[in-house]
Amino acid sequence: MLQTPGVTERLAHFVVNTRWDDLTPPVPQQAKRSLMNFFAVALTGCHDPTIETALQTLIAFSGGKQATIVGRRERVDALSAAFLNAAGANVLDFCDTHVPTAIHPTAPVVPALLALAEMMPVNGRDFLLALVLGHEVECRIGVAMSPSHYKKGWHITSTCGVFGAAVGAGKLLRLSAQQMVWALGTAATQSGGLCECLGTQAKSVSVGNAARNGLLSALLAAKNFDGPPEPLTGVQGYYHAMNETPDLSWLTQNLGATWEIVGTAYKPYPCGFVIHPVLDCVLDWRRDNPSAVVEKVVVTGNPLLAARTDRPNISTGREAQVSTQHAVAAALITGKAGVDQFTDACVNDPKVLALRGKVGVARDERFPTTSVEVEILTADGKSHKVSQRAARGSAENPMSDAALEDKLRMAAAAAIPGKNVAPLIEAIWQLDKTEDISRLALLSVPRD
Amino acid sequence: MLQTPGVTERLAHFVVNTRWDDLTPPVPQQAKRSLMNFFAVALTGCHDPTIETALQTLIAFSGGKQATIVGRRERVDALSAAFLNAAGANVLDFCDTHVPTAIHPTAPVVPALLALAEMMPVNGRDFLLALVLGHEVECRIGVAMSPSHYKKGWHITSTCGVFGAAVGAGKLLRLSAQQMVWALGTAATQSGGLCECLGTQAKSVSVGNAARNGLLSALLAAKNFDGPPEPLTGVQGYYHAMNETPDLSWLTQNLGATWEIVGTAYKPYPCGFVIHPVLDCVLDWRRDNPSAVVEKVVVTGNPLLAARTDRPNISTGREAQVSTQHAVAAALITGKAGVDQFTDACVNDPKVLALRGKVGVARDERFPTTSVEVEILTADGKSHKVSQRAARGSAENPMSDAALEDKLRMAAAAAIPGKNVAPLIEAIWQLDKTEDISRLALLSVPRD
Repeated sequence: MLQTPGVTERLAHFVVNTRWDDLTPPVPQQAKRSLMNFFAVALTGCHDPTIETALQTLIAFSGGKQATIVGRRERVDALSAAFLNAAGANVLDFCDTHVPTAIHPTAPVVPALLALAEMMPVNGRDFLLALVLGHEVECRIGVAMSPSHYKKGWHITSTCGVFGAAVGAGKLLRLSAQQMVWALGTAATQSGGLCECLGTQAKSVSVGNAARNGLLSALLAAKNFDGPPEPLTGVQGYYHAMNETPDLSWLTQNLGATWEIVGTAYKPYPCGFVIHPVLDCVLDWRRDNPSAVVEKVVVTGNPLLAARTDRPNISTGREAQVSTQHAVAAALITGKAGVDQFTDACVNDPKVLALRGKVGVARDERFPTTSVEVEILTADGKSHKVSQRAARGSAENPMSDAALEDKLRMAAAAAIPGKNVAPLIEAIWQLDKTEDISRLALLSVPRD
Repeated sequence: MLQTPGVTERLAHFVVNTRWDDLTPPVPQQAKRSLMNFFAVALTGCHDPTIETALQTLIAFSGGKQATIVGRRERVDALSAAFLNAAGANVLDFCDTHVPTAIHPTAPVVPALLALAEMMPVNGRDFLLALVLGHEVECRIGVAMSPSHYKKGWHITSTCGVFGAAVGAGKLLRLSAQQMVWALGTAATQSGGLCECLGTQAKSVSVGNAARNGLLSALLAAKNFDGPPEPLTGVQGYYHAMNETPDLSWLTQNLGATWEIVGTAYKPYPCGFVIHPVLDCVLDWRRDNPSAVVEKVVVTGNPLLAARTDRPNISTGREAQVSTQHAVAAALITGKAGVDQFTDACVNDPKVLALRGKVGVARDERFPTTSVEVEILTADGKSHKVSQRAARGSAENPMSDAALEDKLRMAAAAAIPGKNVAPLIEAIWQLDKTEDISRLALLSVPRD
């Protein structure tokens, strides 16, 4: 099966031959939504200590001021910008998710495209098309080896992201099909990244590399830098090295008819996905009951919720991301569930700490994982029951366009206070009507 | 077994605590020999089309002129110099070999060290010590998963080289043991490279990345950029992802008592190793019989020789590297077996072509792979038999210091004609007595 010839060529021909007009609704709008979410999460991450250190390190080697770092005034070379924007977009695990693989598809792809768009003329349709094609190949390569690849410990966003960045950048560079095969080969030989690094700063390096090295692969291919004809399926190729016997039909079946980007999910809250329906309930209730004094909270959900997130005793923001007790307490006290609610400071806030002790998690197998019931007992002796059937951001209840805008606005308020991001939001929705998008990323930098 | 705690820490402590005085003969001299061989092969590769294209691509993003590219006038940032020098040293497969793993250990390590030595004060002893320690960790990580890792299709020089570069650079940067563990983690999550790319330009990218990304790992760790405590053996760590159940004793047994660099082999000829004893015989005979007219040649050796290299009909320099017929013909006609003898031009030289047809390869299982007999019939009707018991460059018959010098001189004559490399050769032999080695790489650049 690994010998099936032509798989990489077929992918390459598909990428090279697909035009903007081949994208049918809702694909173009979903591409814009992914871009909106990208700017939101890149702004959220752009001042994280991991990004500060990576920037300090890379800037010493960076040539010129070619490209924008989302949310920051510093400018660096295009390869380093691709690295930093990808790492920043993913650093807080707040980015989009391709559910069948757990790939976060946009973080490696868009930074490569934004960097190129500051080096050469790119129009909005070409940009969105490159984004969609990058997602498509990245996710298909991942689907064919899921779930075994991720289970082995490979950080699939990194290992597959390099292909997405190469394809997207290669599309903008108008590579021939032969050059696209070469770009995929140079991407394959740069694929890497370990889940062992999750929870540490090292995690961000493989995500940054995916964007940078995918872009480099495409730039080299544009100069006819060659690679093997079958990097994915050759006898010493990618899948063989990864010890996978992939179902290769996933790579090419329905190419151009189905689009992986359509099912992408976006996170409304920067924490574990199973906690999301809990936060939906608590935030809605708090909005309607702003002054009620809470005595006790019982959250009932699928046993997985308790297994993963029944954590009353925590001390760090990182742990808070997987604590139902903390999420409920912080949301009730602040009325929000943004990045600020999952910091060390919030975890150690005495008010939040006190309320955490009053939250319990109950198991009920009748609930699916995206559904919960929350019972809140208030000081006036009343019991309030709130339930969520399908969490916001899940496939059954996707975030609205307006909610994605809000996510970006909230991130911008923290990262680039005082900056008007209405032009950025408008530019994203109007991208397919824009002839030169070279200033898109600049709309995210702080005011002078 | 994968859970054994502390392996990465033990390696880190070993690297941090080892001093120059801990290196016992012949380790320091072998380090110098590896460095001599490195400059020879880096000069050999520095104008290869692969390196030209990589340089053209990277220089557009390169900051400042921090670091030297061996054999060239262009200067680039330290990370890019590390990439280009590693890729150049390995591009023609003429570099050193760690026989138990087939790792080419020096190509990823030395470029990281040379780049750092142009950024900060480094003395010769520290440089050689960092080189030895980089080799040691790189090769031990590889031995523990050999031969299965390479058989899966991983380009082991790339996948292990990133650890060697991180360790060597980290030693020069005087990382603490904790920082060294972090550097190894950031290296692990950047490890990659596929044998499927051998024979294409893409091969050089993973080798270049090994040096660049190892250096980056150490630079980040020096700024306390953290990683996991057990990147190699954690449950989602390097060996698990690589689907290996390594013998971890190889990582730590006899640390400081045995040295992997001691058994490193150097190639006298830029072609397949099994052809080397054939060339020893033919070159010796031609030197003693400069004007004899050859009618027929029969090479007798281990069946592996014929299986791999009985190729009378070839058309490219790349094929020539695995053709006994071509190697014999070219050596008889030119009296040499250097890079020029394995080019497309030499393959298509009518005189070489004619003589190739007169060379045969015979199988005899009594010969080991490093041993051959060559019978040469000359126009005067005489038969000449020459034999080689152990090829030059094999473990039983290592290249002499003088032969390594000659290899460097021959490479320099082609790459930097007119440049006097006596100062470079002298600097390498005297390196342990040199307080500031920042100008070492500069001794390899062309005359103004």
